[in-house]
Amino acid sequence: MTTALPVTIKFLQRPTRDDWVRQAIAHLDTILLDHSHCERKAAGVALNLIFRYPSSTKLVRTLTTIAQEELSHFEQVNQWLERRGIPLAPLAAPPYAAGLKAQIRPQEPDRQLDSLLVAGLIEARSHERLGLLAAHCPDLELAAFYRSLMASEARHYGVYWTLAVTYHDRATVDQRLVELATIESDLLATLHPEPRIHS
Amino acid sequence: MTTALPVTIKFLQRPTRDDWVRQAIAHLDTILLDHSHCERKAAGVALNLIFRYPSSTKLVRTLTTIAQEELSHFEQVNQWLERRGIPLAPLAAPPYAAGLKAQIRPQEPDRQLDSLLVAGLIEARSHERLGLLAAHCPDLELAAFYRSLMASEARHYGVYWTLAVTYHDRATVDQRLVELATIESDLLATLHPEPRIHS
Repeated sequence: MTTALPVTIKFLQRPTRDDWVRQAIAHLDTILLDHSHCERKAAGVALNLIFRYPSSTKLVRTLTTIAQEELSHFEQVNQWLERRGIPLAPLAAPPYAAGLKAQIRPQEPDRQLDSLLVAGLIEARSHERLGLLAAHCPDLELAAFYRSLMASEARHYGVYWTLAVTYHDRATVDQRLVELATIESDLLATLHPEPRIHS
Repeated sequence: MTTALPVTIKFLQRPTRDDWVRQAIAHLDTILLDHSHCERKAAGVALNLIFRYPSSTKLVRTLTTIAQEELSHFEQVNQWLERRGIPLAPLAAPPYAAGLKAQIRPQEPDRQLDSLLVAGLIEARSHERLGLLAAHCPDLELAAFYRSLMASEARHYGVYWTLAVTYHDRATVDQRLVELATIESDLLATLHPEPRIHS
């Protein structure tokens, strides 16, 4: 097993550890199933933000596009599941997303800022990890699929960041992003025993 | 004002009353804004069902397509809002959808059956009403837009019905559909004072 790519993804405080790559490559079927859930949840996050801020034109417009792309990825991942004979099934979520969500402050405008930054951080981490899967996956066709998704994920975290600085003061965004990014990396400091995109 | 088209839409117990057409045509901007909310909610309904039944392959596959189409309609309606200079804004919902949701029984498998049939009935009514807008709207380009959406709405209620008979006994589906369709028509028996797609 080669080591994780030393690619630095903007926003992320610490890169993914090598043991995640080993765990993921050893359990590709579970990772694919979890990936399906991640894309579905990502579409849900974008749609929920549209529901919560129905008057924010730029937010509504850009997150509609993101929700559409996530649904398209969801469909593509599900086609891979079918191809590999993996039935759709629920899967216990790792503590990652719940740990991040717990950081979202309940009062506006903090709530919107935190929601956008948390969504952006999850996209940034997904981008990094799909890149690692693309680099290390022994199934070359599946590796190519992961590579094809990476560009969207990169665009998505840029969109969330752009929305954050559209609706919030730049200095406030920068400071909060560092705080949340530190927590994000801390949540991944110990490898979750069950293989997941965000274990 | 001409009268409402006497088109009979499958599933619906009673056709829309003429006074809805008059109300809608007199308040097209509000109807367009409400239509945007309806498309967004329809995408949410499809996505929620995917979340609730993640192992039901056929449901997941067909409702992913529906959610994508609803988001595309949402985008198109929002372009119409922009074109007419109508800002995105929240809008109080009429009692229609909440009245139908209240009929969804909480225990499975009733809950799934009712959820699918309620979603199908809302799509059927939307199909009928977009058809009425297409027939009566004085703005011919907007009328053409409504006509272009009708085919999808018709397909959508067929999809929800097909899912109902995929997962539930045909006789049970038929009986429950009549019960819910009667309530659906009852909910629209009195015109809601605020102009809405489902007033």
